[in-house]
Amino acid sequence: MTSSKQEMLNKNSFFESEQTFDNGIEEQVMQLFASCNQAISIEKQIDEITDSWSQDFLNAIDSNTNIDLELLLEKFTDSKIPVQPSNFESYLKYIGNNVVAHSIHTSSPRFIGHMTSALPSFVRPLAKLMTAMNQNAVKIETAKALSFCEREALAMLHRQIYNFSDNFYNQHIQNNLSTLGILVSGGTVANITAVWCARNASLGPKDGFLGVEKEGLAAALDFYGYKGAVIIGSDLMHFSFDKAADLMGIGTNSLIRIPADRNNRVDIQALRQTVVNCQAKNLLIIAIVGVAGTTDSGGVDSLIDIAEIAHQANAHFHVDAAWGGPLIFSEQYRYKLAGIEKADSVTIDGHKQLYLPMGIGMVFFSDPHLAGAIEKQASYTMRKGSFDLGKRALEGSRPGMALFLHAGLKLIGVKGYEFLINEGIRKTQYMAACISAMPEFELLAEPDTNLLTYRYIPKRFRRVHSINQLTDIDNQIINNFNECLQKSQRQIGHTFISRTTKKDIKFGSETPIVAMRAVIANPLTTEEDIRAVLNEQIEIAAKIQI
Amino acid sequence: MTSSKQEMLNKNSFFESEQTFDNGIEEQVMQLFASCNQAISIEKQIDEITDSWSQDFLNAIDSNTNIDLELLLEKFTDSKIPVQPSNFESYLKYIGNNVVAHSIHTSSPRFIGHMTSALPSFVRPLAKLMTAMNQNAVKIETAKALSFCEREALAMLHRQIYNFSDNFYNQHIQNNLSTLGILVSGGTVANITAVWCARNASLGPKDGFLGVEKEGLAAALDFYGYKGAVIIGSDLMHFSFDKAADLMGIGTNSLIRIPADRNNRVDIQALRQTVVNCQAKNLLIIAIVGVAGTTDSGGVDSLIDIAEIAHQANAHFHVDAAWGGPLIFSEQYRYKLAGIEKADSVTIDGHKQLYLPMGIGMVFFSDPHLAGAIEKQASYTMRKGSFDLGKRALEGSRPGMALFLHAGLKLIGVKGYEFLINEGIRKTQYMAACISAMPEFELLAEPDTNLLTYRYIPKRFRRVHSINQLTDIDNQIINNFNECLQKSQRQIGHTFISRTTKKDIKFGSETPIVAMRAVIANPLTTEEDIRAVLNEQIEIAAKIQI
Repeated sequence: MTSSKQEMLNKNSFFESEQTFDNGIEEQVMQLFASCNQAISIEKQIDEITDSWSQDFLNAIDSNTNIDLELLLEKFTDSKIPVQPSNFESYLKYIGNNVVAHSIHTSSPRFIGHMTSALPSFVRPLAKLMTAMNQNAVKIETAKALSFCEREALAMLHRQIYNFSDNFYNQHIQNNLSTLGILVSGGTVANITAVWCARNASLGPKDGFLGVEKEGLAAALDFYGYKGAVIIGSDLMHFSFDKAADLMGIGTNSLIRIPADRNNRVDIQALRQTVVNCQAKNLLIIAIVGVAGTTDSGGVDSLIDIAEIAHQANAHFHVDAAWGGPLIFSEQYRYKLAGIEKADSVTIDGHKQLYLPMGIGMVFFSDPHLAGAIEKQASYTMRKGSFDLGKRALEGSRPGMALFLHAGLKLIGVKGYEFLINEGIRKTQYMAACISAMPEFELLAEPDTNLLTYRYIPKRFRRVHSINQLTDIDNQIINNFNECLQKSQRQIGHTFISRTTKKDIKFGSETPIVAMRAVIANPLTTEEDIRAVLNEQIEIAAKIQI
Repeated sequence: MTSSKQEMLNKNSFFESEQTFDNGIEEQVMQLFASCNQAISIEKQIDEITDSWSQDFLNAIDSNTNIDLELLLEKFTDSKIPVQPSNFESYLKYIGNNVVAHSIHTSSPRFIGHMTSALPSFVRPLAKLMTAMNQNAVKIETAKALSFCEREALAMLHRQIYNFSDNFYNQHIQNNLSTLGILVSGGTVANITAVWCARNASLGPKDGFLGVEKEGLAAALDFYGYKGAVIIGSDLMHFSFDKAADLMGIGTNSLIRIPADRNNRVDIQALRQTVVNCQAKNLLIIAIVGVAGTTDSGGVDSLIDIAEIAHQANAHFHVDAAWGGPLIFSEQYRYKLAGIEKADSVTIDGHKQLYLPMGIGMVFFSDPHLAGAIEKQASYTMRKGSFDLGKRALEGSRPGMALFLHAGLKLIGVKGYEFLINEGIRKTQYMAACISAMPEFELLAEPDTNLLTYRYIPKRFRRVHSINQLTDIDNQIINNFNECLQKSQRQIGHTFISRTTKKDIKFGSETPIVAMRAVIANPLTTEEDIRAVLNEQIEIAAKIQI
């Protein structure tokens, strides 16, 4: 904690007022809940302190403190809930010193290793408003206007993807029988929901059979005459599909991962052949997944080809555009998503390139009735024919995150998002150019969007590397070097790049390659920041002995 | 919107400063993200407006406006994202007039129909701090201190449930191989996660078989020699178990619902017999579920008996204590949860009786290694041996909700939560006494905790009702009356009680009974509020013609 924060805490002796309530638990607790003037004043004063922390936090350049994890975790080893309510002042000090101080500055312009960014300032006051209203979006009785607001926001993004007719949107936007999209906690739940809908729709009730929902997967495959069920996509598919395959009972071995090419796009020929093989084996293809922005390296599959393959196979076509979906806002880059409008379902994350806070995933459906395949009711809450959003959802109670989504779409607009997307790609190309021009680095793939993989080549390997003659042993040493470099940079805490492991690189080595992974989405990141991050790597590398 | 809000918006002409940026999208967007002084000042001014809305919202008594749903939804029918960023001023006005004004006052002392409450004031500033820091709890690289803080908070609640030794907690609290609990978005995901872990642990890798996770459910049941798989619990189990059974591929028909008695507790004899029958049929019992606080009526199953049945059957024992879990804080009422400490897994919701904002569910495990059964890795993010919390979780990216949980446990403390729990039960008993004393109402069951079901008996049925001679047709008329009464009260918007349908009542009628459902958890709700809610029902009933 900075000394100014410490001073602020000392200066604010408002906590003394608490002392007057020491005579009983009842008073102490009721004061927490009271909406009396004194309570408001205390809330305002807490607000002042946390606002000051927030501003310091947001204005910092360093991506982190350099505290060791082992030292940090020692601060969090008390497993006992205090018997009496803790003193506010000391608890706030504790949070300031231990949590805020050692949190990751995910919005730093030099923290360019994960899918985080600075956020627009309006999300912070809205977060407080959302928490004050504390709507529960599961049902209309606890989220009246918000249920409709959520449907509207989802319809807006649906239209941006599918661009169906005015008539279509008029018919479905506020129709409680229709589901244009489902707001969920994140991309993982969105992907799971999509394949769950696909599975249930493929194996629905028929001729007296009650469907997979009621009778289970084994009975359903048996009834429909399948030998098994698979999900097919790129080997760069997000690991949420492993979760989905496990959870849904098909097993992760039935998640068929097709190799991606060196540009991180699924091999279309191999995909086509796999589909044919699965059909020959009489396997149900629950879904064919196209990835629009792999987590690993930002590659976008050829969605239009996958759409055609899925169409021919009569299989559900899901696009995981958790990262890359907002490319639809860019006139210049939208072409990369060509074919997304043929998807049966699409995942997009609000907390990624829509620049909204954590906790906003979405899945969209081209058929507004597909999500009926997972509908559930309960007498005490979810009623058929109601506007309860929880009827067709994996989750139950959930917060009013739609407020952020709605505000983002309205306040940033198509052109605003276009600017953000274009800028991210422009700066990524700048970084790629820097890397290519610097002898210290090797660019591992041309960036498809705004993710970049590269690595550091230690001096003694540069000549051999330049003539493409690195051995597997050389690569193993370089891997260790890059892992060490990434960890050192992270530990020092000034700047941050993540790392990943690539199976295959352009020189065809069989050793997996440890890669640096940059994600450039933060509008505050400048070209100078990018150079600073690379230069820090060069400085750190000079000190590494491997 | 009140006129004072309108004035405030008109008074605040700070939005004029925006005009200077009209010359380009870049400036407009960058201003949203900039942490320059002007941006801070705009954020502060938005904050002032939303704070004023929040205070008006929190201080209101009415639970809602009386706008018709059909009129309200008309306000949310624009499916087009604006091309240009919207004007802040008009957007805030729009949100104020349409969303805030017509949101449900879930914290009103007279909104006592759902599992919502007033929240302690510290959650509102913390919400803004959390959003400002925007940690992603999926991995240590995006949530450093928070990962440990979350583990500590979960360990604290784990200890409150299981009370294992100091040594146990020292060993596991910050051990990355151990999982004492998982923080999730809500009770539904917690319940799904629990039975997912149970299924995978029962059907794990063995003798060359790779386990259900990899090979799928059908192969696993086959390998282990089971004819099928079931989950068994009360027919008042939450509908999240239907989702779990559907999702996991066993089918909802394999979710065996045992009738509950008139006190809303599962019939132990019938449960025991069902377990024996399932074993005789060679069915895998994935889990036996005990409910601690049914959503419908607050009943708590006899957990100690279910624990013994599960133990004998060698089956996973899960307790869904999403609602009732915090009874563990009460010396007086903790006995109702006797046996919970024998559970293999326990669900508790933070956003219910821990008085935290929406979006905080938890599942706890007595065996710190059980969650290993669902562990997944990914080269770009989740690493074996790391502290990444997302390794063993259904969800991926998620917000730092642990901050609220940690603060709640510390700032309210054991005694604070005890007071809140005891007060809820005391006031529920008061309401039950009022209802019993009023000729207009019939109490449908003695409240087990702080949920209450009752109904209105129209005057012309009171005599027949008093001598237990209502016919099924009478009950049907009374049902219609109560449904109409509940809807009218909701529509008027002053006060709120929810409704449910009970299969069985004390008089043994075969007609399902429409019941009013009160949930008394809000510390701001007074005895006067309770009388006001009942009196309003009597007033409304006088005008209903059925």
